[in-house]
Amino acid sequence: MTNVTEQDRVLIFDTTLRDGEQSPGATMTHAEKLEIAELLDEMGVDIIEAGFPIASEGDFKAVSEIAERSQNSRICGLARANFADIDRCWEAIKHAGKNRIHTFIGTSPLHRAIPNLTMDEMADKIHETVSHARNLCENVQWSPMDATRTEWDYLCRVIEIAIKAGATTINIPDTVGYTAPVESADLIKRLIETVPGADEVVFATHCHNDLGMATANSLAAVAGGARQIECTINGLGERAGNTALEEVVMALRTRNDIMPWHTGIDTTKIMHISRRVATVAGFPVQFNKAIVGKNAFAHESGIHQDGMLKNRENFEIMRPEDIGLSGTSLPLGKHSGRAALRDKLETLGYEVGDNQLKDIFVRFKDLADRKKEVFDDDLIALMSQDDEADDHLQLVSMKVTCGTGGQAESTVELEVDGKDIVATEHGDGPVDATFKAVRRIYPNTARLQLYQVHAVTEGTDAQATVSVRLEEDGMIATGQSANTDTVVASAKAYIHALNRLIMRREKAGPGADTREISYKDLT
Amino acid sequence: MTNVTEQDRVLIFDTTLRDGEQSPGATMTHAEKLEIAELLDEMGVDIIEAGFPIASEGDFKAVSEIAERSQNSRICGLARANFADIDRCWEAIKHAGKNRIHTFIGTSPLHRAIPNLTMDEMADKIHETVSHARNLCENVQWSPMDATRTEWDYLCRVIEIAIKAGATTINIPDTVGYTAPVESADLIKRLIETVPGADEVVFATHCHNDLGMATANSLAAVAGGARQIECTINGLGERAGNTALEEVVMALRTRNDIMPWHTGIDTTKIMHISRRVATVAGFPVQFNKAIVGKNAFAHESGIHQDGMLKNRENFEIMRPEDIGLSGTSLPLGKHSGRAALRDKLETLGYEVGDNQLKDIFVRFKDLADRKKEVFDDDLIALMSQDDEADDHLQLVSMKVTCGTGGQAESTVELEVDGKDIVATEHGDGPVDATFKAVRRIYPNTARLQLYQVHAVTEGTDAQATVSVRLEEDGMIATGQSANTDTVVASAKAYIHALNRLIMRREKAGPGADTREISYKDLT
Repeated sequence: MTNVTEQDRVLIFDTTLRDGEQSPGATMTHAEKLEIAELLDEMGVDIIEAGFPIASEGDFKAVSEIAERSQNSRICGLARANFADIDRCWEAIKHAGKNRIHTFIGTSPLHRAIPNLTMDEMADKIHETVSHARNLCENVQWSPMDATRTEWDYLCRVIEIAIKAGATTINIPDTVGYTAPVESADLIKRLIETVPGADEVVFATHCHNDLGMATANSLAAVAGGARQIECTINGLGERAGNTALEEVVMALRTRNDIMPWHTGIDTTKIMHISRRVATVAGFPVQFNKAIVGKNAFAHESGIHQDGMLKNRENFEIMRPEDIGLSGTSLPLGKHSGRAALRDKLETLGYEVGDNQLKDIFVRFKDLADRKKEVFDDDLIALMSQDDEADDHLQLVSMKVTCGTGGQAESTVELEVDGKDIVATEHGDGPVDATFKAVRRIYPNTARLQLYQVHAVTEGTDAQATVSVRLEEDGMIATGQSANTDTVVASAKAYIHALNRLIMRREKAGPGADTREISYKDLT
Repeated sequence: MTNVTEQDRVLIFDTTLRDGEQSPGATMTHAEKLEIAELLDEMGVDIIEAGFPIASEGDFKAVSEIAERSQNSRICGLARANFADIDRCWEAIKHAGKNRIHTFIGTSPLHRAIPNLTMDEMADKIHETVSHARNLCENVQWSPMDATRTEWDYLCRVIEIAIKAGATTINIPDTVGYTAPVESADLIKRLIETVPGADEVVFATHCHNDLGMATANSLAAVAGGARQIECTINGLGERAGNTALEEVVMALRTRNDIMPWHTGIDTTKIMHISRRVATVAGFPVQFNKAIVGKNAFAHESGIHQDGMLKNRENFEIMRPEDIGLSGTSLPLGKHSGRAALRDKLETLGYEVGDNQLKDIFVRFKDLADRKKEVFDDDLIALMSQDDEADDHLQLVSMKVTCGTGGQAESTVELEVDGKDIVATEHGDGPVDATFKAVRRIYPNTARLQLYQVHAVTEGTDAQATVSVRLEEDGMIATGQSANTDTVVASAKAYIHALNRLIMRREKAGPGADTREISYKDLT
């Protein structure tokens, strides 16, 4: 193998920003993509698939900037099997310290039928495009999409062609999440045994979780000889999602006795990035999600303890600290100082500069005045709020009356580009009335796709985090806000989402952020 | 094998009401347990583990009533390795048409150390308790807890003893979710080959999802010879949960080509029961959950379509209809009649009598007056609300003022056992103020454990569903309410949860619902 030095090292290829972000509703902003890429880089992800450069101007810019800022990770862009895609991809990634072009084509009968190519014509196309990519970049990944439904002989033939044309990684995608572990291991094993030149490249596995087996399939592929796992944080992705990074990494670590391979991931960064991806994508993680769910380590809580259990290891195969969950954590209060706040933020994974700390400290004090105890989760919610200084719309004040006696009434005062405007509206409930008042002040056609509230910590004085997802002309924007007043948090989250829509519109003109290329034909 | 007629039939053993319900915070009421048991029975679950009769009076009553009402499913109760547990279990299940005693003991060195038994002493105990169970019930399941960490020779020995003592099913639990598919298959295969009498019993697999591999491990065990899968709806359960019923059932169905086994499950009932379990347990299912997640079949939505994809099967291995998701569904409106409502409810899995329909129709009309279109999800939210006629506390009216200018104020009028009481309180936000006003009217020490809001459908006039979980003296109660006014829904959900706490307290006296037996030592 060319790209690994040790036989027991498994490369982690994260596609949260490409295959994850294409999940309906999981769209991230430019700034969010940069933040997630930085966290992936810091946690030791080997390859970051940062996007699909030709799909839109926004994708191109995000991949380019991630490439320029990359530290240790290899930055990868996606390209279909044509020169324009591959050239555009190279433009985006060329400034990374380490880079990769990932090009693919659907090789199964169903997929060959779409561009109406014969087996020979497709083989030629693969040779041409992989060669072209390799002329630009020394590191090229090629994927035969729908590999598991491609004829065996043809699959071997096209993989051999791709290797001869210069591919350094061959990825075998289970595009529809159809495979089972025994098959997954067997397929990789047979390919490595059969295809000439297979020993000179890295084989990769890319699984989807439609039948709930993505993690087991990925690990089985490694047992079969694959040395790269493609995955996403929280298993984000279309339908039932991709393989979850945290699951394969922790399974390899926990069961190293029977799976003697290791990754370069710093597992203590898992919890922080999991929370950030859940927040920016607007995809909450369920309580009973493996590794990162709220209950994953919670088997002791809420249950009457008896004296029978002396050994912690009876029921614990991983320690919370392994994924960056601090076991004991004292809450802060109104008398906590700036140093205590900074210390706490650092243990939660946030490094903040002096100026940022100043701003956060003001918000922390404001919260501590209203809440007796400020827990870790309260701080995480606080940190999730964007800097609002440059926003077009800012909430000045609001007053809402609601209840059982008829419609709710909301009076909202917004600063719109420096000018104060007040409006009062009625609606079905305080949130509806408030959103109407905002629309009266700033007319728009954005459609509310998602509205979600959850209490950050326990108790009736808990902060509520509200997520609002808006869609307008194919552009999607998500806003979040945390406040002890649910209605105020709702207004702020709505305004936050609107500000993001406005920012995008200004940058690109209406509709310009929409991907012209459907993601339907991707791996 | 004694309990199956065909070699290719896999029995589905559902433990949502036992291993699922013991998950911190997932406590269900008596009525909810009966409802879920009925749905499990209707969908064709072979064995329902209904609870742990000796754990509490509540558990005993629930198991007894489920046993009495059972139609086709075999009703199972759990018992530790002692006569008192087994006798109590038999009392609860004896009136079922088909019943089973499930008794277990931890056989690994760690677990033998706790009661301080030698290998021989434990072997005797197993013989005695299984014999005792078999004298009461012709169908006995025995589990060596922590089997995967028990010495091989000893594991074979104790299984042989259990079979000789009359066990008809041997369950091999992966108590800590530690195993991998290859091991899982191999363990069952070797046990069946090695243990004398193994061919006369059914082997079962019980997996946990700590490393994300429960589904693959369960299916591997079947490949190894197991013919019973233990699982829960939505994978509910402690930590990362149990094997998800919907995943193993749909995987067996979808990949029957390589997994030639079938279950008796009517898969079209999956979606309805998944929603009900999520609601009553207060455990929302994440968007990208396999099979039952909101996005599981949603790869087409929200994405610009191009003409490249002609074949639906390119990306679809299961059809939404297979799990009871109706493809096209027209919303109802204010002009929809009673017959249309009943038809719609039936397609959603609700069978309602004339009287119930009358009541639902009133609530439907009230909702349709406020919302232009009433979607399936709106109706599901409507159906999730309990009948409030017998409640101690009822909301008469409320009025709330909140916003950015200081504290929120809430005036609440409750009917407490027929008497109207009004109180006004201030708080951090409308929800805090409202909950305080309720507490002023009806003083209580219940602690708020969970507060969650989500919009049922899209649009700012959507209904919000609020879930509130309260804890008092070890008793937990969850309340839900749906309303277009979030604050009203919050008040109702809180009052709903309080009513449930009061009901439990009255039935049992304070603390009586608390399980005296820790669940820590269960499979």
